Amino acid sequence: MIDTRHIVIIGCGAGGGTAAQFARKTDRASSITIFEKGPYTQYSKCGLPYAIAGTIPKFHNLIEFSEDWFKKEHIDIYLNSSVEEIDLQERMVRAKKGLEHIEKKFDNLILATGAAPWIPPILNIQKDGHLLSGVFVLRTIDDGKEILSHLKKRKNATIIGAGLIGLEMADTLYKKGMQVTVVEALPDILANTLDDDMSTPVLQTLQEKISVYTNHLAVRSEEIQGVISSLIIKDASTGEETKINTDLLIIATGTKPETSLARTIGCAIGKTGGIQVNEKAETSVQNIYAVGDCTEYVDLVTNEPVCVGLGSIVVRQGIAAGINAAGGTYSLPKGLLLTRTSEFFGMEIAAVGPVKQALSNLSVVTGKYKGFSLPDYFPGKNPITIKVGVHEQTGQILSAQAVGSNAAQRINTLACAMLGKITVEELRKLETAYAPPIAPTLDSLTLACEIVALKLTRKRRDL
Amino acid sequence: MIDTRHIVIIGCGAGGGTAAQFARKTDRASSITIFEKGPYTQYSKCGLPYAIAGTIPKFHNLIEFSEDWFKKEHIDIYLNSSVEEIDLQERMVRAKKGLEHIEKKFDNLILATGAAPWIPPILNIQKDGHLLSGVFVLRTIDDGKEILSHLKKRKNATIIGAGLIGLEMADTLYKKGMQVTVVEALPDILANTLDDDMSTPVLQTLQEKISVYTNHLAVRSEEIQGVISSLIIKDASTGEETKINTDLLIIATGTKPETSLARTIGCAIGKTGGIQVNEKAETSVQNIYAVGDCTEYVDLVTNEPVCVGLGSIVVRQGIAAGINAAGGTYSLPKGLLLTRTSEFFGMEIAAVGPVKQALSNLSVVTGKYKGFSLPDYFPGKNPITIKVGVHEQTGQILSAQAVGSNAAQRINTLACAMLGKITVEELRKLETAYAPPIAPTLDSLTLACEIVALKLTRKRRDL
Repeated sequence: MIDTRHIVIIGCGAGGGTAAQFARKTDRASSITIFEKGPYTQYSKCGLPYAIAGTIPKFHNLIEFSEDWFKKEHIDIYLNSSVEEIDLQERMVRAKKGLEHIEKKFDNLILATGAAPWIPPILNIQKDGHLLSGVFVLRTIDDGKEILSHLKKRKNATIIGAGLIGLEMADTLYKKGMQVTVVEALPDILANTLDDDMSTPVLQTLQEKISVYTNHLAVRSEEIQGVISSLIIKDASTGEETKINTDLLIIATGTKPETSLARTIGCAIGKTGGIQVNEKAETSVQNIYAVGDCTEYVDLVTNEPVCVGLGSIVVRQGIAAGINAAGGTYSLPKGLLLTRTSEFFGMEIAAVGPVKQALSNLSVVTGKYKGFSLPDYFPGKNPITIKVGVHEQTGQILSAQAVGSNAAQRINTLACAMLGKITVEELRKLETAYAPPIAPTLDSLTLACEIVALKLTRKRRDL
Repeated sequence: MIDTRHIVIIGCGAGGGTAAQFARKTDRASSITIFEKGPYTQYSKCGLPYAIAGTIPKFHNLIEFSEDWFKKEHIDIYLNSSVEEIDLQERMVRAKKGLEHIEKKFDNLILATGAAPWIPPILNIQKDGHLLSGVFVLRTIDDGKEILSHLKKRKNATIIGAGLIGLEMADTLYKKGMQVTVVEALPDILANTLDDDMSTPVLQTLQEKISVYTNHLAVRSEEIQGVISSLIIKDASTGEETKINTDLLIIATGTKPETSLARTIGCAIGKTGGIQVNEKAETSVQNIYAVGDCTEYVDLVTNEPVCVGLGSIVVRQGIAAGINAAGGTYSLPKGLLLTRTSEFFGMEIAAVGPVKQALSNLSVVTGKYKGFSLPDYFPGKNPITIKVGVHEQTGQILSAQAVGSNAAQRINTLACAMLGKITVEELRKLETAYAPPIAPTLDSLTLACEIVALKLTRKRRDL
């Protein structure tokens, strides 16, 4: 008789929860335990802005798999519990839930400890280790509930960070009727998603509805009766200070991987600060897996490690860790494409592969096409701009960015081309689906490729 | 000094018009002449149902490049002209426009003669070579105008043929307030686009609004005062006849390539009845090119010739013929993917590759996934069903079909996977763009691939 396999998972976010599900699918007889420090089972963090906006009626709707669901699957789940120790010798996890001490034996352990918001050094923003009243991060359902409860009688919202989450929250708060200001330290918004030539038109659209300060650092906050009343920001070039009246401040400046438990057992930490994992979601320590925002993985294009921060990748890692920890076999691709998308202020944006700064070591030829979703003669067409970056020597697609109609779906096609190492010469001839109410005869994505292909031909001719 | 290159093009549809444009771009100095039998320059045939519906305000809007546009590009265009002879010896095209005889010398000739509607043998449908009053095909702007003018005081419309154009017209006439009946000889609707399991739910949706008779042949029509009054159809299995009262009949049963001129100069005609062309759009006769609905080309999956009937392919052939005839170089891919789409009665459908009947010589493993456009918790999500067919031995995608939200864009990604010969094992791990208001964590297209991959694993294990 084979002994029961014991699997322990730390963290019940998208990564840990998915790992538990797939471990259960792979081995019906295994013992599976999850320790989760918060009060909720697996829910969609990405959905939080839409629950605050009211698009999603209740925060509770974000919960994708309930405590009951896990129980039905015979997965032991301890909410509001903190893991105190991973004992590698005894192969035991020791946790605490209230006054209760829990010990769970493991054969395989999956770390899904997530990431914590990174708080920039802003004077007066924290008191005794707590954020000033009216200042929030957005990481959990409880953060979302607190923001929603706080904003009800407020008028002016400021967001630090013009990345995807910052701008999703800007849209949410604008829809809630607030005056919204976004402060970004870098010279451009969406610096991890779009090149400056692609983000500039997005910025212009934003500025029709909200105030955006790029190249500005948040310096200090002021308070009235213990609640934030203003934020002082500083032009990064001139040093000139500006005071923004604000009674709600959201910090959306990224996260840092939560690796303290991983470090105690000697898991290798990479240069991004995340736990290093391979294509099976294995860490450097035998039988210890890690998934999600606490990990780093290789970018397929640059071969450099990157933080794993996209839900779609976290879930894939969860599948891999769950199957492998339960005795099956599942390997992720050798690197990440980082296909990503968002929507705010009526604009859909999407990208795959690195932005141009991250491609500076390679010879890249780019092409951009501004077209429409439908043929010229068809009413109701919407604009779409697509930029494609191609490796000069191989002709392979290295990156693509899109703003406009069906940006995400078009980027999926380009992601597929990257996965298949299709050259721009082939891709420009891709037969795309055409019908007047759906798409033009030649799609913007192939026309962007045409432009790159022409540039490549000229470059090669000139050599 | 190099002599001027003389290019003559017969036909100014999407293929001929595009060929002229790209010939001009390639060789600014060449002499380019187009003979077109109809009264219009290049326009969108695919847009005709939407001009009849009124979605596109005027038929004139469908004209993509005007006579003036061609003149400005120094392209001589003769409308309402018929080519009487292609003289290969003298390298001369002889045409007639009214009483005028025109002779044009050519170095390279491009045949873009299109296709003519195929009229099934229905008793009493034609008189003296003309269709009975109230009976139409839909091939030209003039056909469209006549249909629109005829339908104004009519109530009952019947369409023969439940292919893409037949169902687009059914939608159009339904929107015009008519009682619509569709008659299809085959047991299933959309037989060239969807497998029966994919088309059955589409049929059910159609039947909520119109009458559809599949497996029924049109036998004869009846008339009152010279205008059609009813159509008698026959169950193909039982022979039982049904009479449908109708005062408008549209025949949408496909086309046959127009090859009479090509035959006079010995161009090889393939088994579909179309002119054989290669990847440069060359026919079997030197310096004679052919493009569009008069040609046939190879299906990339089956290696069998197929009629070229999709606007997106016609335009690509036009690009190839124009560039090559003008001294440049442009090659099409070795075969067609046949990426295709349409929309009617609120349903978007799309496909790439052959339907299952055409794949019967290959071992194919299929998987189907019914999902949604957005995460479960997000309001306003729409259904999407995707079916993927994979070659059992190689794991490569052979076909894909989709019905629902962004079907066409999702099929484009699968078309790209076919172009890149990506296996289903790789494709199921494709990182697709995820954000709650745009797409779910795992897209239906990768989940359909997961299902196929699991089936393949099981099959291989069982061997």
